[in-house]
Amino acid sequence: MIWNTDRMDYYAADCILGMTRVFPERWKCLRAGKNAGILMKAEPTPDRFAVIISGGGGNGPFCPGYVADGLADAAVLGAPFAAPNAYAIYEAGKYLGKGSGVLLLYNNFSGDYLNNDMARELLEEDNIQVEVVVANDDIATALNEPRENRSGRTGIALLIKLAGACAQRKMPLRQAADIVRRANERLGTLSMHMYFDRNLIEYGAGFSGEPGIRTENHMDMKRSAREVVELLTESLNPGKDEKLFLLVNRLRLTSYPDSFIMANAVYEALSRNYKVERVRVAAFSNIVDTYGYEFSILCMDDEISELMGNSTATDSFMI
Amino acid sequence: MIWNTDRMDYYAADCILGMTRVFPERWKCLRAGKNAGILMKAEPTPDRFAVIISGGGGNGPFCPGYVADGLADAAVLGAPFAAPNAYAIYEAGKYLGKGSGVLLLYNNFSGDYLNNDMARELLEEDNIQVEVVVANDDIATALNEPRENRSGRTGIALLIKLAGACAQRKMPLRQAADIVRRANERLGTLSMHMYFDRNLIEYGAGFSGEPGIRTENHMDMKRSAREVVELLTESLNPGKDEKLFLLVNRLRLTSYPDSFIMANAVYEALSRNYKVERVRVAAFSNIVDTYGYEFSILCMDDEISELMGNSTATDSFMI
Repeated sequence: MIWNTDRMDYYAADCILGMTRVFPERWKCLRAGKNAGILMKAEPTPDRFAVIISGGGGNGPFCPGYVADGLADAAVLGAPFAAPNAYAIYEAGKYLGKGSGVLLLYNNFSGDYLNNDMARELLEEDNIQVEVVVANDDIATALNEPRENRSGRTGIALLIKLAGACAQRKMPLRQAADIVRRANERLGTLSMHMYFDRNLIEYGAGFSGEPGIRTENHMDMKRSAREVVELLTESLNPGKDEKLFLLVNRLRLTSYPDSFIMANAVYEALSRNYKVERVRVAAFSNIVDTYGYEFSILCMDDEISELMGNSTATDSFMI
Repeated sequence: MIWNTDRMDYYAADCILGMTRVFPERWKCLRAGKNAGILMKAEPTPDRFAVIISGGGGNGPFCPGYVADGLADAAVLGAPFAAPNAYAIYEAGKYLGKGSGVLLLYNNFSGDYLNNDMARELLEEDNIQVEVVVANDDIATALNEPRENRSGRTGIALLIKLAGACAQRKMPLRQAADIVRRANERLGTLSMHMYFDRNLIEYGAGFSGEPGIRTENHMDMKRSAREVVELLTESLNPGKDEKLFLLVNRLRLTSYPDSFIMANAVYEALSRNYKVERVRVAAFSNIVDTYGYEFSILCMDDEISELMGNSTATDSFMI
């Protein structure tokens, strides 16, 4: 739920102003205007490529809270629930990408696609090296269609971390983009919404009311954990040599203890047949006013697993 | 909202099991049984006094998420919304307080009082040095009564940080307890619940449905920020030489951007007449399924301000 109704056009700007006021050592503002704003790290690192993420304002911590050492260099915010315009993304890329280029990373929604695509064109006209990676981890969308038609979801948190790790190692942009794309291919996310009053668990529902792909009439935590694992591993089919990173995102009404209890249940179901290397639990993308979770699994080869090895602490999660 | 209905007696135990599974580098379990559990730092620091916090399970991150370097050494959890029993607190104190003693810190509720008081007696019988500090920061309770009758609220987050800072400096227990008590005297918290459907802002409501001390019929963010500042400064009456630490706790339905926007509005109203040294924003105690905030102000003298100077990052907030 959001407030600030009297200045909705300046929602992103006001958010950025508050963030830089509270944490001046973490963040600064590159631009804050009508319907768009650009938040960046307080101390940019110009000797490596920049990771720029973008999306509609109105929720969090994705995407502004992902601006951090080891994660994104900047976040471009639009109005609540609306993609930021291409010029704001272009401006961020021009400022941060001059030296070693820029990686544009966003979730697969049409507005974000159109604006990032135009920003890429504008940046390339300025001879700034650009790579684009589009997260499409939501396994419950675009069923029986090519993977690239799927929506992106919370799994993007893991791609931001991976991109940030590549940047910290001063990897060439193209090599980093290839690694992040490879990870995106092995990433899946499934939502689970609970309706206690109707004794109903819904798997795969979207965050704008899109219906799920399966419902069950029970309230058994261990059984639901097995169902989550079944749906995710059917879709991802993890290989014997892959190591799994499990991300548990609690939705807004879910308590802190419940998120750790559920994460442990999913860990136990998953680790019966697979090597789970890492589990992280938090409100990574606190978008739905409901009780429930989103579960993301990233299947990692050795190179990606090594890159994902360090923890990054932000103002609202550890990943 | 909480789930885990099939094992409610083991809620604290299951929570601790999940937490230690996900973050074995941060946490370990000292005990996890029926209706109680003890979470402690993975690497205890026996050469200084230990900070032990306690409270009912069911919410978060307070109190288990406050077990961290620079914060609490251990958290003793009861069943959801019920104080942990005295023996669990005693056990934690016995284990961690042998060398330099133990500071028991909790919010002023009768169950917590009774159990911490009994734990103190048991520890003293074992010749373990104990000091007790009871947070009573909620300015909207026990009006016209002595301050010690007030409830504790989110402000305890700042006292935990202060106690942790004293412990890190290896201060003698009694000296640290005096400092934390002094801070508690200069700490106030006010809740603000919003009812958009009724155009109503309620100040001072409790988290179990207790009515507030003032309601207003408007939805103006800046005006409500001024009202928050007015109520808090009337109660605390900050001195000219005091520096203020403002803590903004967002309740469950409040979005991440809104919390920074609101924090900035309160900062601006407060800094007109007072020196605001620090602002922190997060879901510090995510206890109420409503839209709103809790605002805490700590009035700091130079010694306390210096102790509160470093940031600590946990799995869900930065303080």
